[in-house]
Amino acid sequence: MIEYRDLRVAVLGAGSVGSQVVDLLLRHGEELAARTGAGLELVGVGVRNLHAPRDTEIPSALLTTDLESLILGADIVVEVMGGIEPARSLILKALESGADVITANKALLAEHGPELFDLAQQVGAQLYYEAAVGGAIPIIRPLRDSLAGDRITRILGIVNGTTNFILDSMDASGAGYEDALAEATRLGYAEADPTADVEGYDAAAKAAILASLAFHTTVPLTAVHREGMTSVTAQQVEAAREAGYVVKLLAICERLVDPASGVDGVSARVHPALVPRSHPLAAVHGGNNAVFVQAEAAGSLMFYGAGAGGVQTASAVLGDLVSAARRHVAGGPGVAESTHAELPILPISSAITRYQVTLEVQDRPGVLAGIAGLFAEHGVSVETVAQSVGEQDTATLVIGTHRAQESALAATVAALQTDPVVSRVVSVLRVEGL
Amino acid sequence: MIEYRDLRVAVLGAGSVGSQVVDLLLRHGEELAARTGAGLELVGVGVRNLHAPRDTEIPSALLTTDLESLILGADIVVEVMGGIEPARSLILKALESGADVITANKALLAEHGPELFDLAQQVGAQLYYEAAVGGAIPIIRPLRDSLAGDRITRILGIVNGTTNFILDSMDASGAGYEDALAEATRLGYAEADPTADVEGYDAAAKAAILASLAFHTTVPLTAVHREGMTSVTAQQVEAAREAGYVVKLLAICERLVDPASGVDGVSARVHPALVPRSHPLAAVHGGNNAVFVQAEAAGSLMFYGAGAGGVQTASAVLGDLVSAARRHVAGGPGVAESTHAELPILPISSAITRYQVTLEVQDRPGVLAGIAGLFAEHGVSVETVAQSVGEQDTATLVIGTHRAQESALAATVAALQTDPVVSRVVSVLRVEGL
Repeated sequence: MIEYRDLRVAVLGAGSVGSQVVDLLLRHGEELAARTGAGLELVGVGVRNLHAPRDTEIPSALLTTDLESLILGADIVVEVMGGIEPARSLILKALESGADVITANKALLAEHGPELFDLAQQVGAQLYYEAAVGGAIPIIRPLRDSLAGDRITRILGIVNGTTNFILDSMDASGAGYEDALAEATRLGYAEADPTADVEGYDAAAKAAILASLAFHTTVPLTAVHREGMTSVTAQQVEAAREAGYVVKLLAICERLVDPASGVDGVSARVHPALVPRSHPLAAVHGGNNAVFVQAEAAGSLMFYGAGAGGVQTASAVLGDLVSAARRHVAGGPGVAESTHAELPILPISSAITRYQVTLEVQDRPGVLAGIAGLFAEHGVSVETVAQSVGEQDTATLVIGTHRAQESALAATVAALQTDPVVSRVVSVLRVEGL
Repeated sequence: MIEYRDLRVAVLGAGSVGSQVVDLLLRHGEELAARTGAGLELVGVGVRNLHAPRDTEIPSALLTTDLESLILGADIVVEVMGGIEPARSLILKALESGADVITANKALLAEHGPELFDLAQQVGAQLYYEAAVGGAIPIIRPLRDSLAGDRITRILGIVNGTTNFILDSMDASGAGYEDALAEATRLGYAEADPTADVEGYDAAAKAAILASLAFHTTVPLTAVHREGMTSVTAQQVEAAREAGYVVKLLAICERLVDPASGVDGVSARVHPALVPRSHPLAAVHGGNNAVFVQAEAAGSLMFYGAGAGGVQTASAVLGDLVSAARRHVAGGPGVAESTHAELPILPISSAITRYQVTLEVQDRPGVLAGIAGLFAEHGVSVETVAQSVGEQDTATLVIGTHRAQESALAATVAALQTDPVVSRVVSVLRVEGL
């Protein structure tokens, strides 16, 4: 056993994750010390309100509202307060003081990651963030280390538990979005204001983090195409089921060659998509998360588990804490972020995938031929058509396309919307994982 | 970009994995250098026969049969030759010379791991082995680093692709073991001599590695209870399906308190087991592998992907190579193996699980009551009984038990075998993942 002075650990935030981190640190301190070769001394827990209710009991002597002083005495700072400020300033201050930092803050990393990683590299400190994506699921280390010798080509991720719970519940019960959201809220899967989840902001931040890591390229949050899932209807989910698909909100990160310009780049997007029921992602139920990774040599991999929850996320934070402590014991400046590739970031219009387009059309001879022609004119090849007769001389067409470029599909949809035989473009969904 | 002298890499073995490692190193050298901050110079490939056919083209100037000299000039040695000797001696020599070693050799690690890790720690070198379990699936780093702050309670692993292919094929087609094995051999999933796979030796080696890592305890191969899957019949697979199960060969590593002695220890075992069809492991088809991990804080996690294959395994080797190179650039002695816990290793008789016992009995009044009484006498509680009438006054009983200790179940089975109303104990299968 290596003997080493105790490492001083400061925790910023005592919410659902922070209180569990503190609880595990206090209960498992000796075990963690044995694993790292150094004791981990919890020097304080920074909070806004000393008397707020907590999920676990924290000795009052540890609580402080003076976060800046707390940081300055620490070897390792755990930031689990969330939000952009003051988290950003506190992390910068901690890194400047030479402390390693562990954060679960995906929004901060997606918006200010480069600033934080640059500073860490300058001062020789480490910034760990396994808990920022996929809760307890180990995904950052596998991408950064295990797959570092491979070329990742695509990531399909269910990275938001709230929206997966809602979509899974719509799929299982036939409920509409509003009812499923209400159930998710009642069961604690959705927050009082669910905007960040249902509008895809949370998933977009995680997509930016995953794409940056996978492609060795800084992918800013603003480059992630984002569509929420509030407009997904019970009818769409039902139609998807009948066609052998399930609707999932996916974070998709891809290596891509833009067909028009020939530019070899990367793309990141978040939107609801149809996933074949035979795909491993289709079996991800409830609030679980999963990240499906395709790499040139490794083939297809999937990482599955609880994507959120205080104690689950705390597991990932503690794993980072052991890594940071081991590095303190072992010495060495550690591994800098790798953004050497800095590939071009392609807009959503460059993306290439399959689509399912549902149209309400006038039910008269020649309509199908006309619409098929319209797809062809815009360079979109139709693979399947299902037609069902509706009310008052209308019919519903469900058109599945071959792989097509997003810009071509968008032009097709624009043309459909002004076509006199089309009463309504009911829905356009991308199909992933085929 | 950090500038650094080129690191000298020696590869031992040019079989299905080695030839792919060499190919990727030669083709992606610049990319790997950018990721690590150091060039990776392939100084040679050690082989037994210079003129053997290879899966990829290796420049003949790189090939050598003088493995000992090759090692002495290397910073990083990649051992992908397999087998115990000369792999063991060569790795010891490489570590002694101060080189980091990357190996995919599960048999060697399971039998001689402590010797290799001890030497590595003494000399401050690193021993990497991500490729030894689960092929391309990142599982070693997640257990060693990501979950280092958590307490792993159980691992259920499908860690042998050959046997999963055979069992999946029996499940899908109703084929018997011999036919499924023949198909696996024809398609290249099984070797000419499939003993190591079908008798569970390969899975047992991986169980020893996983249990050691997960429980911070040296678990030698000899402590792993091993049963192969050659006796699994088409009838068992069919009966399992009807009861909502699928038969899988599992590697099971558990924290366990022995009910008799109260000893808190660990257990590792490999055997065919019934897995509920709703369990994520049931959806692992073909030659794929998956490792299902349960931890106190993280809950349930699963890691899924290609468990074998030359290029897939090469991906894991290259990931280790990048890690080793980064550590050479960053300095520091690295992380020693963690065996601080050294928990007692419990025998199979301490294991506690559910069982499905199939009996052929005489079909006369009172038989069921007598047999139920026999289970109760041995402390095994019966949960379900299904009876079907057979030929010539016989009946088949399928008895599902509650959780019971292995020793109690073994005593029950011994008593059943000598009971006059029992014509035959048709099968005893453990039920896992409920």
